[in-house]
Amino acid sequence: MAPHDLDQTIALLTRTPAALDALLRDLPDAWTRAREGDDTWTAFDIVGHLIHGEQTDWIPRARIILQSGETQTFDSFDRQARESEPASMGRLLDAFARARSESLRELRAMHLQPVDLERRGHHPALGVVTMSELLATWAVHDLTHLHQISRVMAHQYRQAVGPWSAYLGVLHCAGHGMP
Amino acid sequence: MAPHDLDQTIALLTRTPAALDALLRDLPDAWTRAREGDDTWTAFDIVGHLIHGEQTDWIPRARIILQSGETQTFDSFDRQARESEPASMGRLLDAFARARSESLRELRAMHLQPVDLERRGHHPALGVVTMSELLATWAVHDLTHLHQISRVMAHQYRQAVGPWSAYLGVLHCAGHGMP
Repeated sequence: MAPHDLDQTIALLTRTPAALDALLRDLPDAWTRAREGDDTWTAFDIVGHLIHGEQTDWIPRARIILQSGETQTFDSFDRQARESEPASMGRLLDAFARARSESLRELRAMHLQPVDLERRGHHPALGVVTMSELLATWAVHDLTHLHQISRVMAHQYRQAVGPWSAYLGVLHCAGHGMP
Repeated sequence: MAPHDLDQTIALLTRTPAALDALLRDLPDAWTRAREGDDTWTAFDIVGHLIHGEQTDWIPRARIILQSGETQTFDSFDRQARESEPASMGRLLDAFARARSESLRELRAMHLQPVDLERRGHHPALGVVTMSELLATWAVHDLTHLHQISRVMAHQYRQAVGPWSAYLGVLHCAGHGMP
């Protein structure tokens, strides 16, 4: 396991929009509008949620840490909220790419130094967190939703694969009650 | 859950190489050459395994079903084997894209009809399987490895995210002893 590395984090954050675009754009609705069960998310919902994170979570919280440290508790991030307009996958993917690009522009403009990565903030549920942890979480949040998208889509063929389901790990991932 | 649909399957199979390319090309080795533990795979290994599947599993087995039905048991697919030369991620991604493109060209040339999708083959461990199940498995196999790649990469920041690990489902996926 690696310590947090800002360049490594940015390298991943930069690639996620294009990876989702290549996977999901113009993919049939049978993949992208399907879910695992009641009150679970489609791939469409998940891209909307990623946009919401760009708007309300990552950079806004990094700003709070830089400006106020632990004295200002973050706003709660509604982990169920998501952007779903405009209502085509192509337009959602475009919106995510634009929002992520803008977030990364602002992150780079912060010129974070090692001492900044150690700065502390106050999370409403988790308590004291650091800038470094926030940025590492941003990257792993992308990966957790890529993991979720692959699981939600695979679920659609759970019966169709027949006996091969025994060999397909993604069909044995219970979702852990979280993305 | 959907029944198997050949066009839906092809739509996904077509997109996987570009999605992995967008995610992994020129990504730092700290992401792509890292693993979850001893005897587990890196993202690099996984792309090599996908190439191996194109060469020895999917289309070769579809050919056997069309030509011999249940009378010829499939060769065993070594699920641990993988192509790892040429040894750069960029070249592996190129090789996967070429191999997948060739596989899809051959799949389309089979002009499979509904009756062909019902044809049976004989799997060395699973017994009787159908063409439809084979093709659905090919698609879910892509998704299971996308799921695995996201999990392996997320693992690298397991400590770095600090208390946020509680909210990140991918860090709670045990891997199920399989990809």
